[in-house]
Amino acid sequence: MAKKLDGKRVAFLAAPEGVEQVELTQPWDAVQAEGATPELVSTQTGKLQAFNHLDRGDTFPIDHAVGDVSADDYDALVLPGGVANPDFLRTNADAVSFARGFFEQAKPVAVICHGPWTLVEADVVRGRKLTSWPSLQTDLRNAGAKWEDSEVVTDQGLVSSRKPDDLPAFCAKLVEEFAEGRHSRQAASA
Amino acid sequence: MAKKLDGKRVAFLAAPEGVEQVELTQPWDAVQAEGATPELVSTQTGKLQAFNHLDRGDTFPIDHAVGDVSADDYDALVLPGGVANPDFLRTNADAVSFARGFFEQAKPVAVICHGPWTLVEADVVRGRKLTSWPSLQTDLRNAGAKWEDSEVVTDQGLVSSRKPDDLPAFCAKLVEEFAEGRHSRQAASA
Repeated sequence: MAKKLDGKRVAFLAAPEGVEQVELTQPWDAVQAEGATPELVSTQTGKLQAFNHLDRGDTFPIDHAVGDVSADDYDALVLPGGVANPDFLRTNADAVSFARGFFEQAKPVAVICHGPWTLVEADVVRGRKLTSWPSLQTDLRNAGAKWEDSEVVTDQGLVSSRKPDDLPAFCAKLVEEFAEGRHSRQAASA
Repeated sequence: MAKKLDGKRVAFLAAPEGVEQVELTQPWDAVQAEGATPELVSTQTGKLQAFNHLDRGDTFPIDHAVGDVSADDYDALVLPGGVANPDFLRTNADAVSFARGFFEQAKPVAVICHGPWTLVEADVVRGRKLTSWPSLQTDLRNAGAKWEDSEVVTDQGLVSSRKPDDLPAFCAKLVEEFAEGRHSRQAASA
């Protein structure tokens, strides 16, 4: 039986340390269950150390260094949270450029918790409606976003949620948006 | 022999978890060595868990819950870093208001690493020259600050540095600024 994301490749971008584990694994399982191929992209190859809040969790094999791939290679992007993860990613020019590429190509992007800091750095949130972990709301508004406090916000291919509790709604909505494919207005802000 | 900070009370504001230990202890020792009384202020009483980057370090007794004190009670404020520390503090209205009070009263403030996020939330960086851990530079510029990449930046009673390596310069400069006392132009942005 055909699945919603058959044949699609989905990039998960995270720093080598600090990603919130459940925000990586649950969206990963959700896209895989719908037939997509998820790939883990980081600033270096080797293993990624996930965290459960401030404690070390499991490690995961990295599929590609971000400098070796681009938005051309994928149909969609997931940006998990964990406070130290985007705080590191946003200082890496290749990671910021990789994320910006999905907006330039009007490809869907799903971002949760602290993940939007990478989008602030890519300067792609201007005029976009989104949510995040509440600590980021001032940074997002200052970057031109329309910040909302909702379980999940969808704006023209950009799906966002606040925290691990929102994951069921986040995963359901990102599968829907990724299945729809390109959203022409996603590129407007890039 | 008279010391530079004799009789002064200095507040150190940090979250219950996540402060970068050395950014707490070195400025603490520096002001104490010059005769000041440092006090640890957090969002609750009990013990504070410091971190060495992403690993747990030592614990420290909290002197006051931030809701029970105000800038009236102190001569100066130190805001240490550690990525999870200001990320939490900025979501606490009492902590943000406490920090803003030092600007309103033109009292000197020293901030390092990720610490300035609390000042973004307090909206007191507009037009101010400062530095930080590089990941914050876009958030600080978007909040109206003039961000610089320097070991230590001093602007009318606001002392800032980037990271633990800058601590010797940071501690020397904050002692100097705290000794000078109120800086009338510190209040201009508050």
